[in-house]
Amino acid sequence: MLQSRFPKTLYLGTAHLIELVRRKGLPACIAGIARRIEADYRRWNEFDKSSRLASHSGVGVIELMPIADASQFAFKYVNGHPTNHRHGLPTVMAFGVLADVATGAPRLLSELTLTTAIRTAAMSALAARELARSDSRCMALIGNGAQSEFQALAFRDLVGIRELRLFDIDGAATAKLVSNLAGQGLRTRVCASTAAAVQGADIVTTVTADKAHATILTPAMIEPGMHINAVGGDCPGKTELHCGVLEAASVFVEFEPQTRSEGDIQQLPSDFPVTEIWRVLAGSAPGRVDAKQVTVFDSVGFALEDYSALSFMRDAAAEYGIGDLVDLVPQPADPKDLFGVLRVEPERAPTSPRAHMRRAAERM
Amino acid sequence: MLQSRFPKTLYLGTAHLIELVRRKGLPACIAGIARRIEADYRRWNEFDKSSRLASHSGVGVIELMPIADASQFAFKYVNGHPTNHRHGLPTVMAFGVLADVATGAPRLLSELTLTTAIRTAAMSALAARELARSDSRCMALIGNGAQSEFQALAFRDLVGIRELRLFDIDGAATAKLVSNLAGQGLRTRVCASTAAAVQGADIVTTVTADKAHATILTPAMIEPGMHINAVGGDCPGKTELHCGVLEAASVFVEFEPQTRSEGDIQQLPSDFPVTEIWRVLAGSAPGRVDAKQVTVFDSVGFALEDYSALSFMRDAAAEYGIGDLVDLVPQPADPKDLFGVLRVEPERAPTSPRAHMRRAAERM
Repeated sequence: MLQSRFPKTLYLGTAHLIELVRRKGLPACIAGIARRIEADYRRWNEFDKSSRLASHSGVGVIELMPIADASQFAFKYVNGHPTNHRHGLPTVMAFGVLADVATGAPRLLSELTLTTAIRTAAMSALAARELARSDSRCMALIGNGAQSEFQALAFRDLVGIRELRLFDIDGAATAKLVSNLAGQGLRTRVCASTAAAVQGADIVTTVTADKAHATILTPAMIEPGMHINAVGGDCPGKTELHCGVLEAASVFVEFEPQTRSEGDIQQLPSDFPVTEIWRVLAGSAPGRVDAKQVTVFDSVGFALEDYSALSFMRDAAAEYGIGDLVDLVPQPADPKDLFGVLRVEPERAPTSPRAHMRRAAERM
Repeated sequence: MLQSRFPKTLYLGTAHLIELVRRKGLPACIAGIARRIEADYRRWNEFDKSSRLASHSGVGVIELMPIADASQFAFKYVNGHPTNHRHGLPTVMAFGVLADVATGAPRLLSELTLTTAIRTAAMSALAARELARSDSRCMALIGNGAQSEFQALAFRDLVGIRELRLFDIDGAATAKLVSNLAGQGLRTRVCASTAAAVQGADIVTTVTADKAHATILTPAMIEPGMHINAVGGDCPGKTELHCGVLEAASVFVEFEPQTRSEGDIQQLPSDFPVTEIWRVLAGSAPGRVDAKQVTVFDSVGFALEDYSALSFMRDAAAEYGIGDLVDLVPQPADPKDLFGVLRVEPERAPTSPRAHMRRAAERM
C-alpha cells in the first residue's frame, strides 16, 4: 500500500552531502563533477536551455535555473545575498531537483549549497585547463569567502596550481582560507592588495560577493598570458572587471544569452565577440592560441553544470547507500482518484531516515 | 551545534498534507485557501510576476512558477503528462517552496499535488462567485479525473451548486467521481455526452487532460447566461473551447501575458479583449453585468494562487504541529566558512519525522 502511494524521491540533505563528500573525498567529487560537466557540455545541442529566471530585491536575488535533455529535467533554486553573513547565513544557498522527463516525477531532491561550491570550482578549473597556459602554477585568488577553498583545490587538482596569492577586503576571511588550506599541498601568500596578489600570477580568480559594478581588476594589473577566471560577476549590476580588461582579452562564456545580461560582459555592446565554452570543450572552437593572449572565463553559472552535479551526487549516493526516501508527490492506487488518498488513514513516508540509514549500513 | 548548522526548513510531504486536510477538513481548506487567494489578488501590484517557465517534451510539460512580494518568494514545480495514468502516476504532480526575500533562506518545502487540486478548485469557485449568475445551482462537469471532486466541493461550498451533470470519455472516471461524492450533498447525474451534460446547466466546468486543440465545448452547446469555467486548456497546444465560444463571451483571465500563450485564448488574436480577474476581485472592473451574458474564466493556474496556498498550508501546519524540519541548506558557524562544514562529523537532520510527530502529539 505504501509502496504504491509514494513514488520514491531521494532526499539528500546537508548532512547527507557532508557524509557523501567525506566518504568519497572532496578531490574525487571535484574531479568526478568536472568529468560530468565536460561530457554534458560536449552534448550541448541535446539540452533544452534557457536563461535563469531571477527575482531581484533590494538586498539580493533568488533564481530558478531549469534545463532538460530527453530523459532528465533539472532545476536549481539559488539565492545571492551579499550581506547574509550578518544573519549568520551563507551568501549563496541552493537546492535542486532531478525529474523524469517522461512522467514529470521528481526523483532526486538535493541540497546544492555545498554542491554548487564544488561544481562552480570544477567548472572554473575545467575552463582554465583549456584557457590558461599549461605551465600555470601560481593563481591569485581575490575574494576568500565561502567558495574560495573549493576553487583552490579544483585548480590544484585539475590545472596544477601550486601557489596561491590571496586577497580579501576582510582579513578574517583570508586567515580562514589559509587555515583551511594548511597541509593541502598549496603554498599560500597573503597579499596587501588585489594588485599585489595579481602581480606575476598565471591565473587570476575573482570570486567576490559585492552586488555592485566593482572594478576588482583594472587593465593596469593584467599581464600578457594571464587567464582570468571571473566568477563573482554573475547578475545584472554585479561585475568585477573593468571593461578595458575584457576589451583586451579573448572572452569565453557558458550560455551566451544569459551571460550577456548577467556576466561582466553586461558592460559591453551586445556584439562584443565571445565564445561559448562548450565549443572549446567539444573541439569546435580554439581555446588559448598563444602564450601572450589574455583569456577571460566570464563565468556566471549555468544550469547544465547543476544537471551534471545533481547526476553525479545521485550516483554517488547510490554507491554509498546515502539518502532518505521522501513522499514529495503521491501515487494514488488509481491515478485518476487523487481525492481517494484523503480517505486513507495517514501513514508516514515509506522510509524514515534512520531506518533507511540502517538498511544502507547493512548493505555495506 | 545542530541548531546553528541547519536553518529550519519545514517539510510537508504527502502524508503530512493528508493528515492536515483530514484534521482541518477539506471544506475548511478550500474556503481558507479561497480567502487567501482573494486577499492576495486584491494586492496584485505588490507582486513581482512573470509567466511560468515551461519545458515541453513529446509527452508532457514541466513548469516552474515563481512569484514574490516584498517578504516572500514562492515557486511551484508542476508537470502535466496526460498519459501518466499508464505509469500509475497522476497527470499533474507538484511541490513548492516559500522562501524569505530578505535572505533567500527556504522556509517551507511542501507537496503541492493535493494542494494544487484544492487551490485550483478554490480559484475556480472564487471566479464563479463573481462571474456566474447568483442563482446558479446546476453545474456540468466535463472531465471526471483527479481534480473533479475538488471542483465539485468548492462549487458546492462557495457558489451554492447542488446538482452536477457529469461526462467523461472514460466511464470509470465518472463512476469513481459519483462514488466519491456520495453523501456530500450533491445530486449527480451521469450524462451520455458533453452536450447532454451541458444542456440546461448554469455553470460548465471543463477539466480535461488531453494535450490537443480539443473542442470540448462548441457554440451550439452554449446557452445565454451560462458561466464557463475552463480549467483544462492550460498550455500551448492544449485547448478545450471552440474559438466561437470565446468570441461570444466576456473572457476573464489570471495573468494576461501567461494566458495569451497558454489559455484557450491562444486561439484568438492578441488584441481580443480580456479582463484580469484581480480587477474584478478588487472592485476596479465589473464581473457579470447581466443575466444573459456568457462569461468564461479561461483559467491556466497562476503562481499567485500557489503563493496563497503555500502560505495557508504553512499556517495550518503550525496550528496542528504537523511537519518535519529538514536540512535543505547549511548554516555554517562562520557563514564564510562553508568548507568548514565538511570537517564536522556528519549528523542527522535536527528533527527526525517520528520524534517531531511525537512532540507535535504531546503538544495537543
